[in-house]
Amino acid sequence: MQFASDNAGPVHPQIIASLTRANAGYAPSYGADAETTRAVAMIRELFEAPSAEVWFVPTGTAANALALATLAHPFDTVFCADVAHIHEDECNAPEFYTGGAKLTLVPTEHGRIAPDTLGRVIAGEETRGVHGPQRGPVSITQVTERGTTYDLDKLRAISEVTHDFGLKLHMDGARFANALDHLGCSPAEMSWKAGVDILSFGATKNGAMGAEAVVVFDPEVARTLELRRKRAGQLLSKHRYLAAQMTGYLEDGLWCDLAARANGAAARLAKGLAALDAVTFVHPTEANMVFAAWPARVHEALFAKGAGYHLWGDTLDGAAPDAPLAARLVCDWSMDEAGVDAFLETLRAALAQ
Amino acid sequence: MQFASDNAGPVHPQIIASLTRANAGYAPSYGADAETTRAVAMIRELFEAPSAEVWFVPTGTAANALALATLAHPFDTVFCADVAHIHEDECNAPEFYTGGAKLTLVPTEHGRIAPDTLGRVIAGEETRGVHGPQRGPVSITQVTERGTTYDLDKLRAISEVTHDFGLKLHMDGARFANALDHLGCSPAEMSWKAGVDILSFGATKNGAMGAEAVVVFDPEVARTLELRRKRAGQLLSKHRYLAAQMTGYLEDGLWCDLAARANGAAARLAKGLAALDAVTFVHPTEANMVFAAWPARVHEALFAKGAGYHLWGDTLDGAAPDAPLAARLVCDWSMDEAGVDAFLETLRAALAQ
Amino acid sequence: MQFASDNAGPVHPQIIASLTRANAGYAPSYGADAETTRAVAMIRELFEAPSAEVWFVPTGTAANALALATLAHPFDTVFCADVAHIHEDECNAPEFYTGGAKLTLVPTEHGRIAPDTLGRVIAGEETRGVHGPQRGPVSITQVTERGTTYDLDKLRAISEVTHDFGLKLHMDGARFANALDHLGCSPAEMSWKAGVDILSFGATKNGAMGAEAVVVFDPEVARTLELRRKRAGQLLSKHRYLAAQMTGYLEDGLWCDLAARANGAAARLAKGLAALDAVTFVHPTEANMVFAAWPARVHEALFAKGAGYHLWGDTLDGAAPDAPLAARLVCDWSMDEAGVDAFLETLRAALAQ
Amino acid sequence: MQFASDNAGPVHPQIIASLTRANAGYAPSYGADAETTRAVAMIRELFEAPSAEVWFVPTGTAANALALATLAHPFDTVFCADVAHIHEDECNAPEFYTGGAKLTLVPTEHGRIAPDTLGRVIAGEETRGVHGPQRGPVSITQVTERGTTYDLDKLRAISEVTHDFGLKLHMDGARFANALDHLGCSPAEMSWKAGVDILSFGATKNGAMGAEAVVVFDPEVARTLELRRKRAGQLLSKHRYLAAQMTGYLEDGLWCDLAARANGAAARLAKGLAALDAVTFVHPTEANMVFAAWPARVHEALFAKGAGYHLWGDTLDGAAPDAPLAARLVCDWSMDEAGVDAFLETLRAALAQ
Repeated sequence: MQFASDNAGPVHPQIIASLTRANAGYAPSYGADAETTRAVAMIRELFEAPSAEVWFVPTGTAANALALATLAHPFDTVFCADVAHIHEDECNAPEFYTGGAKLTLVPTEHGRIAPDTLGRVIAGEETRGVHGPQRGPVSITQVTERGTTYDLDKLRAISEVTHDFGLKLHMDGARFANALDHLGCSPAEMSWKAGVDILSFGATKNGAMGAEAVVVFDPEVARTLELRRKRAGQLLSKHRYLAAQMTGYLEDGLWCDLAARANGAAARLAKGLAALDAVTFVHPTEANMVFAAWPARVHEALFAKGAGYHLWGDTLDGAAPDAPLAARLVCDWSMDEAGVDAFLETLRAALAQ
Repeated sequence: MQFASDNAGPVHPQIIASLTRANAGYAPSYGADAETTRAVAMIRELFEAPSAEVWFVPTGTAANALALATLAHPFDTVFCADVAHIHEDECNAPEFYTGGAKLTLVPTEHGRIAPDTLGRVIAGEETRGVHGPQRGPVSITQVTERGTTYDLDKLRAISEVTHDFGLKLHMDGARFANALDHLGCSPAEMSWKAGVDILSFGATKNGAMGAEAVVVFDPEVARTLELRRKRAGQLLSKHRYLAAQMTGYLEDGLWCDLAARANGAAARLAKGLAALDAVTFVHPTEANMVFAAWPARVHEALFAKGAGYHLWGDTLDGAAPDAPLAARLVCDWSMDEAGVDAFLETLRAALAQ
Repeated sequence: MQFASDNAGPVHPQIIASLTRANAGYAPSYGADAETTRAVAMIRELFEAPSAEVWFVPTGTAANALALATLAHPFDTVFCADVAHIHEDECNAPEFYTGGAKLTLVPTEHGRIAPDTLGRVIAGEETRGVHGPQRGPVSITQVTERGTTYDLDKLRAISEVTHDFGLKLHMDGARFANALDHLGCSPAEMSWKAGVDILSFGATKNGAMGAEAVVVFDPEVARTLELRRKRAGQLLSKHRYLAAQMTGYLEDGLWCDLAARANGAAARLAKGLAALDAVTFVHPTEANMVFAAWPARVHEALFAKGAGYHLWGDTLDGAAPDAPLAARLVCDWSMDEAGVDAFLETLRAALAQ
Repeated sequence: MQFASDNAGPVHPQIIASLTRANAGYAPSYGADAETTRAVAMIRELFEAPSAEVWFVPTGTAANALALATLAHPFDTVFCADVAHIHEDECNAPEFYTGGAKLTLVPTEHGRIAPDTLGRVIAGEETRGVHGPQRGPVSITQVTERGTTYDLDKLRAISEVTHDFGLKLHMDGARFANALDHLGCSPAEMSWKAGVDILSFGATKNGAMGAEAVVVFDPEVARTLELRRKRAGQLLSKHRYLAAQMTGYLEDGLWCDLAARANGAAARLAKGLAALDAVTFVHPTEANMVFAAWPARVHEALFAKGAGYHLWGDTLDGAAPDAPLAARLVCDWSMDEAGVDAFLETLRAALAQ
């Protein structure tokens, strides 16, 4: 009954096996090894982007911050969702890596930026010459921080607005695989074909140990990124192990299977919750995250039974027993039907008391 | 015959096994897991420092840069060896993490800073009020970048000079275990008992996959470091796997065994080289690195036979066949007697031609 | 009829005279001169703060950014008004000087932050451990960017909220004198007695050439500020001329006279506007700025007659002739009754057509 | 007898007069005024560079740091003299403005970098891929910090080396006028015609109040510089007064006259010193600075008589009475023959005792 985070689950055995396989003899360090070459080739093929530059880092924050530092001047502002991970959960890493760029928050609905809202916010900036920050890149998150996705039409509309202003588009794809599973499209369709210029392609949340790729579809900016990665202490010396996670992750479509499992578990959970009158949904469930509310006393009962998840914007302190409190439940790849059903059963029992 | 770097060798199986063991079920993310608690406790016990704060990061550059950013203001200068890794091989990471501090280079002999030289260089700074940079921390490397070590007397003398100026002392211990093996002292003796305030405790070069600890002996600075780590994208979400590398590394004294193996291989190599008239030593061999010179044509023969190592400050381009060229040979934990002997045999054969 | 900015008016002759007087013979550079000593002493006396540290810089942006860099860690967020000059008009200078701190925007009414709103926004930050930015200083502007002021009760309430969270309070006093004139209190009452920890004390907008003081009421932070000033290229070598502006500004109460003139002109202007049916006020007039709206065609007529001021959030492009468009009119110290009356007369004539 | 610094002398009356003249009525702020347009035009004409971009700032440190930030990435290193002002006397401002670039020190003789030494130092960098900093711009100082100059041949040789590596050349011209007076060439010859890409054109040390121009001969980089200036709090709001200093400085060749006076005074001083057996020269005198040594007891006698200057690298503490100690003597524009002669007379008298 662990739904706290997709960072809390185990690494998939195929990825451990890939690490072990890579652990034979000597290999050149700092990315000059064969495993890295292979991982880069797999990603290029996967994205139908033979000239894309691909850089691996151990954290999603590093991937995002490097991508933004590559696109934004220090006197620019980055346009992102008001609930964006880069704004709320990276302890000023984007500001650090960019050398002091600002983040301009775009209002969202269910975590999504509407294209016309984006256009309005961008238009509202840089009307003051050198006085305000200059317009910098747009950053969106797919799956969003509220568990929703941008469909291809929305993506294209966002990128059109972005490019119409002469700006670049970054996608935080920490849960790229989960979005892809939901939309049923190709990686290329959900990235450069829709206008994404630079992508943080996550693997960690979907079964890897600590491996993310920054995929630069515009080769012009790539060298800067490589140097910024080194300067940030993000170039792993025994690089083959970062690459081996990625090859293990991508091989035989494992990454898609894992996302399908996680999304499936969340769908099963959402379906179970939808059948309960006392439960209301805060956001629609489109990937591996469920945002729903139920009475405080039921949360207490669940926590007492060992369920693991986070309340979302609410707190039990001083809440009336029947006050509905929102929760975020995240299914990682290892969540199975039994785990979901056990949770639902416990919740139903608590409601019945 | 691979002596290019201790970053090029494999991970020790005990560390892979520790990763695999840690890969069971759910565990809290971002360092709140039991494996991290255990790893921190092991390091505190090892260093006889129960109140030390310990932070894990995946690279040595990150460990160093975070340590320096914790100690230095952006208007300070860091005193370090003219051959320091933080100066030569981190692509301005210390400057980045400190927000623009300077590095003042102290002349070295065989990679070591002499205490009186340090004193003279420090005294030469900050005689200009607000005009020049202010005196910041001192950073030394143990094992030095030239394969030598500071013995305990030298360490204490360095820290005395440092503290007499009211400054703090950082030790880049990327090869801490190799130095310890050479000196035969305790971790505490080679760190805080000798006056080290903050230590980059390396594991990666000595058999781990990508794991370093920053050990802060002065708890006052610790919280800042934690926040700087997160801000730098250096806080791994699935933190247990970083911790598991460290526990596997430390368990049953593996880390000391691995350093002893690497140092032993280097000693064997040095002994073999010392027997050859055509070979001269550039620096004394005290740990796992050998710096020696022999004729250019012999290098060519060795490379042709598949030997792997770096020329050091010299180049084959345009060198006369008999010109002595310096090389750096690094033994990692997996280098065995057969590997050393094969290299020596090949070298002897090339010399004989 | 020039109301574009209080940066557009001339320097008061008494300040030019002070510069000329200071221009005799040699004087130590970098602030070691007698004029600087005298300027500092005058400010300490004026603020009844004998131990305050006082640093001069040529721009308000520098004063603000240095003050914030002194108070905020790079992993902090600064709480400020959503219309704050430090957010909208300093091209990321606070982010630059702090090394990448964030600005958290607090909603305002007529440019003012309400104390309970501030408390709610601060409480909403830092509930995510190391993940989000940490709570940093609060910054308010007096006179606000919308021409209003915080009275002493509001100031004290703001500082109480700030200090209850253990945070420090910065005041951007680019128009400090104008606020003081409106409130009729003492400089001490409007600063440290009300809980301000560090003040940007402006002179430029009120008749100086380019001179601002950062007044640090907490001496603990002063040395850092001095070094940050030098590092930012903000320490003027011929410092006596910066100091002489300040002494000329403060001597014989000139600074209060100038603010009274500017406020008086704005009051006369507001009174004249209030008599016109076609004019509505956007914000109350409390100092030297008037925010009011009237028909687009009247703006066109005024601009045609040479009136100088900025439309505020509106634009003439495509506006219907009778659409009311907001304007900001700023009175500097040199605006006289004739200037105000000429503007009102021109406006009345345009309305009548 | 004041020779401490050319920052300690007064502003020339013609420049004060220019300020006063500019102080009439309203003028657009932030550089949109007519005085700024005129100052820019004068500099373009002076340098025979109609498309040069020109930006004014109040300090030389700001000019240098902005120029370097425009040319260097944060992962670059700037090549400069080991005695460069940007290294020794700007409290890490270049590191701050560039976002953490490094400074690589080039050995000098009498403050000058030899072209072949420069070439060797540049060649020695960036042989380590992403590991070390990347090669960034070269920065030279004209007049050097030791009072010498680069003649046109040396300048061209320096720029040739720089450009051969594909790098850009910055000149710190804090004493540009003094060098020009010595060389007797045109401003264009001593800047862009000799290969200078960006110039800090100083006026402050040569009679202005606080005004420097950054002259960008390559228009491509100009917009970035403008934004960096604003972000650094270096854009003066009442910009006409910065511009008026520059117009007053340049009008009727004042700037050349002032430099000729300062250089002439230094030449007279050097000639007088050369006649004394007890005096030795540390560096040749080519502009307005004299570096010479004489006995400690004579320094004491001079200081006792009120002479003002700095010992240079030496200290009176514990010096034997007859030990020769080096001093730096700087002549500003206001130093006259009587002042020089009084100093020489006092020195001769002290020697005779």
